[in-house]
Amino acid sequence: MSEAAADRRRGRGGGGAARRAERSAPKLEAAKYIERKIPNLEILSDEALEIIEANAETVLEEIGVNFVENPEALKRWKDVGADVNGERVRFPKGLLRSLIKTAPSSFIQHARNPERSVEIGGKSLVLAPVYGPPFVWDSVGGRRYATMADFQKFVKLGYMSKWLHHSGGTVCEPTDIPVNKRHFDMLYAHMSLSDKPFMGSVTEPSRAQDSVDMCKILFGEDFATNNTVMTSLININSPLTFDATMMGALEVYAANNQACIVSPFIVGGAMAPVSVMGTLTQVLAEVMVAVAYSQMIRKGAPVIFGAFVTSIDMNSGAPTFGTPEAAQITYGAGQLARRLNLPYRSAGSFNGSKLPDAQAAYETSNSLNMGLLSGVNFMLHACGWLEGGLAASPEKFVLDADQLGVLHHLAAGVPIDENAQAMDALREVGPGGHFLGCAHTQANFKTAFWKTNVLDYKPYETWVDEGSRDSVALAAARVDKMLSEYVQPALDPAVDEALKAYIAQRKSGMPDAFI
Amino acid sequence: MSEAAADRRRGRGGGGAARRAERSAPKLEAAKYIERKIPNLEILSDEALEIIEANAETVLEEIGVNFVENPEALKRWKDVGADVNGERVRFPKGLLRSLIKTAPSSFIQHARNPERSVEIGGKSLVLAPVYGPPFVWDSVGGRRYATMADFQKFVKLGYMSKWLHHSGGTVCEPTDIPVNKRHFDMLYAHMSLSDKPFMGSVTEPSRAQDSVDMCKILFGEDFATNNTVMTSLININSPLTFDATMMGALEVYAANNQACIVSPFIVGGAMAPVSVMGTLTQVLAEVMVAVAYSQMIRKGAPVIFGAFVTSIDMNSGAPTFGTPEAAQITYGAGQLARRLNLPYRSAGSFNGSKLPDAQAAYETSNSLNMGLLSGVNFMLHACGWLEGGLAASPEKFVLDADQLGVLHHLAAGVPIDENAQAMDALREVGPGGHFLGCAHTQANFKTAFWKTNVLDYKPYETWVDEGSRDSVALAAARVDKMLSEYVQPALDPAVDEALKAYIAQRKSGMPDAFI
Repeated sequence: MSEAAADRRRGRGGGGAARRAERSAPKLEAAKYIERKIPNLEILSDEALEIIEANAETVLEEIGVNFVENPEALKRWKDVGADVNGERVRFPKGLLRSLIKTAPSSFIQHARNPERSVEIGGKSLVLAPVYGPPFVWDSVGGRRYATMADFQKFVKLGYMSKWLHHSGGTVCEPTDIPVNKRHFDMLYAHMSLSDKPFMGSVTEPSRAQDSVDMCKILFGEDFATNNTVMTSLININSPLTFDATMMGALEVYAANNQACIVSPFIVGGAMAPVSVMGTLTQVLAEVMVAVAYSQMIRKGAPVIFGAFVTSIDMNSGAPTFGTPEAAQITYGAGQLARRLNLPYRSAGSFNGSKLPDAQAAYETSNSLNMGLLSGVNFMLHACGWLEGGLAASPEKFVLDADQLGVLHHLAAGVPIDENAQAMDALREVGPGGHFLGCAHTQANFKTAFWKTNVLDYKPYETWVDEGSRDSVALAAARVDKMLSEYVQPALDPAVDEALKAYIAQRKSGMPDAFI
Repeated sequence: MSEAAADRRRGRGGGGAARRAERSAPKLEAAKYIERKIPNLEILSDEALEIIEANAETVLEEIGVNFVENPEALKRWKDVGADVNGERVRFPKGLLRSLIKTAPSSFIQHARNPERSVEIGGKSLVLAPVYGPPFVWDSVGGRRYATMADFQKFVKLGYMSKWLHHSGGTVCEPTDIPVNKRHFDMLYAHMSLSDKPFMGSVTEPSRAQDSVDMCKILFGEDFATNNTVMTSLININSPLTFDATMMGALEVYAANNQACIVSPFIVGGAMAPVSVMGTLTQVLAEVMVAVAYSQMIRKGAPVIFGAFVTSIDMNSGAPTFGTPEAAQITYGAGQLARRLNLPYRSAGSFNGSKLPDAQAAYETSNSLNMGLLSGVNFMLHACGWLEGGLAASPEKFVLDADQLGVLHHLAAGVPIDENAQAMDALREVGPGGHFLGCAHTQANFKTAFWKTNVLDYKPYETWVDEGSRDSVALAAARVDKMLSEYVQPALDPAVDEALKAYIAQRKSGMPDAFI
């Protein structure tokens, strides 16, 4: 372990120049990942959970799942005793439950700055930004296709956001870069513009391998081989289908002991039954297959029980966010994940609005609160999501990231020591007095309350004098301020050169592709 | 009881003309009050709760409270064994806990339309609109002083809002009516423009008596004497002070078996200690005094454990809403109320924003979700609140009221019967299929998901074609639609005449007062 630690230091900007740069940079405020001191909300009874578990086993045995265009996977399933017929795989009851026992209940994802490493599982909650939008919306330019410049801006905002623990992955799609080369530039942005943990590419098994290889350069080969340094998103083609691309990426990551979120992607009523119980049954069945598969690749490989679930507007077919049915599924899936002793991924700054307006915020808050209380361990999309995930927005990003502070303070629980009991204050002030000046308030006010960095509490007249700014205008100003204060975290120039050389060499071998 | 029921029918528009008008009016969608089928979130340990309870008894014994300008109250306290010194009242440990035992854990507040009567207590949640703002903000006129016309508009919107169970009280301050005559017009608006339950006046004991007398006209004397037909808001002058106006109103209501919310009004750090435990100690002490006092007036009078608690921005002194510390206090106060076996009032559409923008919605959603999960039984301010309660907004009203549907669906819990398990759907669709057309979806889609009445789920291009409307614009259109469809609920013309005559007679006896 000491060898690994030494290697880790070497791999993360150990050069003298880097150390000097680091010392001169302003100290960044960065909260530790949340360690919950409040309980989860358990909305399903044991009876309901046992029904779901029994029904999921029935689905797996009777209906089974398809592993598409993946003969190697079919062979693996046959070898462990599954019933394989064409691409359909059926599972004797209990087989998957037995296979997934080797998956860890919790793991550390290391960042190149050890202070930013996160624990995923148990009572922890790690917050990561929006993932995947092809568009960007901002208050200056409106909605347009996202570019690499946007991507870099979001990585910088993520790095500067106190309550965000993770740099994420595809914070937006850099549509100005060829599809087959994007992953290099995205990874390099996370590696060089931030020192928080990040996600790898999943759009091709070869890109997953590039991600692993770049991490070996960034962290040092030994460290990256012996530790988990990426958490990547493997979507399941619900219902009950596992495609070769996603499974291929999972195979690369699991073989390299890198973490995967295995996540049914469900618009309820379309990709799963229209009921909460039915959807949870399918989610559990799908996740059990994917987790078991990861353990067949490498026992002990870290893997997260994912659930991306929205409801649907039955008039238009549009996915809907922040809804009560999505909340019920998220709460229930959390209970199922805990019963499997697996880390849980769900929730986010979900909303269907085209603008960072009231709708966006209602739906987002509903989802963020539910995410905290459903026991989520890894929350992707925790800030910046707009328009059903079609757009990422810098203004929404900083507004949401501010609200993530609310989750931190709420999760911290209530201190009950003598100072917290404040009996001296009650005695000092007495009936009809006021507490602003009392000794207890003076001693505690600085840490007593969560503080916003963007919302407005000013008197009406002051607010009018300052231009009657709404949340979007306040957020736009906050974005500008953060970007103007951004200082790149130090990176060993030799590591930086090696990353650039790897990318140049790999890119030169392939023609541009835009599909 | 059958006599009361007959009287009740008579008292609520039993005339033939009224019945005919009712039959021709369009059927109004009105949800029953929420009966929770999900658990509450209990964030405080038994140890913490016991510390608070012990400390509250110490506060009551050592520090005591002031009953200001109320010699009758002081005499009552002396009579039950409290230690009275000037206006300061101290309580031997256990006295209050013994006195409050006669307060009911749950009660029915009757509406003139029996279908709108509500149960307050137990697992119920009754939602009532914003209370008290002197200003109105709307998207046409901006911010201005509220008038009686605004008041009537809010009562109509409340009547038309499916998820709102209660018409409320001072939905805004009708500043164009003399202060000493407002309560007549406000009560008459609730009585005539809506058939939902409502609140009485508390700004003078005589106005409380007017409220009682008007209810005797509306409901019939026997019915109003034998049943609870008003729930009114008695704020406590925190810290630890009970003024003669509010206590005088409480005396009138309790004597008439009408319900009171006794509610510490606390900006944390100013009117209570800066810590959660300290604030909860004070809240509990204050509520116990007020509940006990109500039972000294009349054993069994319905009374609600209230907690209006916000945090504070320590830079400006402004109250702040939707914050984690306010949430912790609200969760904790709910636990304390349940341990006293009392109905609980807290939470609401709280926010500090000047506009119904993202800030308003984040803060509101935080508070609404916490209100549901903290076990609130009566939620005042559940819609329409803006700018820290200084303004009421029609747009915010309908946006919030729509979100109240989210609370209903979430609280309804998860059905687990065979239809809900949806195994037939899973068997019918199978891997790679889709559920939109399957039999289970067809049979269930109409009731499967909560539906918004105001938010936008349309594709981006359609949304642009329709004018790129934000939430405020969508809400303004919703307000116009609701008001255009409003039909006044039938009221027995004789009752209506009697109410008008009472008001005219009472008003004629007093000169206008504007302070």
